[in-house]
Amino acid sequence: MINETYKAMLGGKSVIRELSEYATARGMEIGYENVFDFSLGNPSVPCHPDFTKALVRMLENEDPVAIHGYSPSLGITSVRRTVAESLRRRFGIEYSTEHIFMTSGAAGAIAHAVRSVTKPGDEVITFAPYFPEYNEYINKTGAVLKVTPANTADFQINFDAFEEMLSEKTAAVLINSPNNPSGIVYSADTLKKMADILSDRQKKYGHDIFLISDEPYREILFDGAEAPYPSAFYDNSLSCYSFSKSLSIPGERIGYIAVNPKCRDADILAVIFGQISRGIGHNCPPSSIQLAVAEVIDKTSDLSVYERNMNLIYDKLKELGFEVVRPGGTFYIFPKALEEDAIAFCNKAKNYDLILVPSDNFGVKGYFRMAYCIDTEKVVRSLDVLEKFVKTEYKAKQ
Amino acid sequence: MINETYKAMLGGKSVIRELSEYATARGMEIGYENVFDFSLGNPSVPCHPDFTKALVRMLENEDPVAIHGYSPSLGITSVRRTVAESLRRRFGIEYSTEHIFMTSGAAGAIAHAVRSVTKPGDEVITFAPYFPEYNEYINKTGAVLKVTPANTADFQINFDAFEEMLSEKTAAVLINSPNNPSGIVYSADTLKKMADILSDRQKKYGHDIFLISDEPYREILFDGAEAPYPSAFYDNSLSCYSFSKSLSIPGERIGYIAVNPKCRDADILAVIFGQISRGIGHNCPPSSIQLAVAEVIDKTSDLSVYERNMNLIYDKLKELGFEVVRPGGTFYIFPKALEEDAIAFCNKAKNYDLILVPSDNFGVKGYFRMAYCIDTEKVVRSLDVLEKFVKTEYKAKQ
Repeated sequence: MINETYKAMLGGKSVIRELSEYATARGMEIGYENVFDFSLGNPSVPCHPDFTKALVRMLENEDPVAIHGYSPSLGITSVRRTVAESLRRRFGIEYSTEHIFMTSGAAGAIAHAVRSVTKPGDEVITFAPYFPEYNEYINKTGAVLKVTPANTADFQINFDAFEEMLSEKTAAVLINSPNNPSGIVYSADTLKKMADILSDRQKKYGHDIFLISDEPYREILFDGAEAPYPSAFYDNSLSCYSFSKSLSIPGERIGYIAVNPKCRDADILAVIFGQISRGIGHNCPPSSIQLAVAEVIDKTSDLSVYERNMNLIYDKLKELGFEVVRPGGTFYIFPKALEEDAIAFCNKAKNYDLILVPSDNFGVKGYFRMAYCIDTEKVVRSLDVLEKFVKTEYKAKQ
Repeated sequence: MINETYKAMLGGKSVIRELSEYATARGMEIGYENVFDFSLGNPSVPCHPDFTKALVRMLENEDPVAIHGYSPSLGITSVRRTVAESLRRRFGIEYSTEHIFMTSGAAGAIAHAVRSVTKPGDEVITFAPYFPEYNEYINKTGAVLKVTPANTADFQINFDAFEEMLSEKTAAVLINSPNNPSGIVYSADTLKKMADILSDRQKKYGHDIFLISDEPYREILFDGAEAPYPSAFYDNSLSCYSFSKSLSIPGERIGYIAVNPKCRDADILAVIFGQISRGIGHNCPPSSIQLAVAEVIDKTSDLSVYERNMNLIYDKLKELGFEVVRPGGTFYIFPKALEEDAIAFCNKAKNYDLILVPSDNFGVKGYFRMAYCIDTEKVVRSLDVLEKFVKTEYKAKQ
């Protein structure tokens, strides 16, 4: 018989995907250049040319049995070493090869990290606004995702709500900074305060609480800022990374987990991840892609378009009277809608071929997300449409 | 806290992997050319040159955002279509795009297939000898793997034991033909008889029983034989394929599930697989590799070395008096050991630097597996060593 749990999921289509499909259909109708599609967080810049060069060089010159052969289940040793060295150099944490586990992107990383430090029934806390896929990522392991309400003042952590939500059952806390959908980067103060609370609760409850840090946007930072590295603030931490956004290769499914060398059982966690892989059908990320990312480990695509787009949109939103927190990174912005019902707001925007995502699925009501990983030329044209939409529909408010 | 279930798994190292590590260590001691390592089923031939050409051409000429961009979670549509057309052409089953779901190799395919048609507590039956990873693949979903004892006469199915094992709880049957470790190909008679039994039991129990057919060795066939295609015999069938062995790209993690168009809910199963992905962290197999395999869909590497090796080994084994069933495909052979205790037998062989895998982990006692995906030159040299080993240790028997 078909598994009823999964069958029931067929009803629940992703709002983001539905909007993106609408945008595509609408584009076929009126020309895609006339649809201002801010729905999908899909990198729009090409990968770094050295990534392509590394792949072509390998394919043309190296032994295909070596390039395309099985990776060890924890990842190719030389690649793990390269990742560890890069993190050590950049963040001053003493990672070594044994602390790195190569994964199929950040989704694969979180799938392993959560299973390693929770058992069914345990609670994992995350903070609104949050990436809605976390529901599937966590709840399908048997653990339970709990969402702390947003701190809408600045989208840092709502500590009162967080402290109330922590309990004996809390096995892990899942953060995402720079954040999808808010674009906010957690400050050092936020990370320090969170770490202090977690350390206290570990003592109080007599068990570990792990910090799982989802960091696919780590390299997309604005204003030349350096984002504080979450694992530097807390020992029991697992950093989950993806090269999807930094190298613009989301389809190649490559990322890693970096186990904090000071964390509980740091020396065996990667091996435990390998055991987890056997049950969920991973085995290893693509070998040739592992080898290629190792050759461009400290490089990124030209990500400057995202900051350019952010500045244009942020300034226009402010000019139009939106309440909005300035993003510190990512390619998202998360303004307050001009009416309480964000879904109604986004539906009205659709009439102007402006595709905005209502915030409800991100765990906050009354906001909307714009993913501005699109051409700047299109962003510029969208601003007039945004202005027209706001002035027509919400004149009284302006 | 670290999950105790996975921590407990750390003790249980794979016998095959241990032997392979021993072979590598021994090779460093006495020179790898002097170790006759038949432990690992790792393809030894290069990938088809057209696969490399397709990748290089794409990397050099096409838009990197398209090549490396997110695949839809069910797979790239054009790739799914190409797979469906190829299967239709080759096996006469009316697959279309909607029946194909691209996966991270056969492991990923089985991870999705089992979850889709079982719920925790359901039983999945497989047949000894069997690939030991099936224990993890099945039991980690919450379903329970049951193993039908081997039919050692010819390694087709032991139907009496099978009929006894089937019950109300049986949700699926998992087969692997051509088979790892026996190299046997299930005959049309075997597949027909199995299908008849399953159809009867479906009626009797009033629920579906799915056939999950694991087919990574589908293209490695000997004596110019055509293997009967399991899904042609039974409607409720999911064919799990990997390009690892046929194209010699096991590290690239690419395969698919083909849903029999006549199976229950055939039109929604691929979408259900997509839902399952969200919970186990897959999302999609690597995009560029999907695109490249589609360009060489009906090609394989030069696989003739495996048949050459099989013939050499089979003839020598017969000459030395071994009881052995002639493989119809794969790169494995599964002879009876010359003493009851296969582990003792393989340990003695180790003293001759012959690395053989005892059968116990494959669910049969008293046999051993040789994986002959190695150079023919080395196979030839190994035969003298095999003869010396047998004549010295088992003289009385010869």
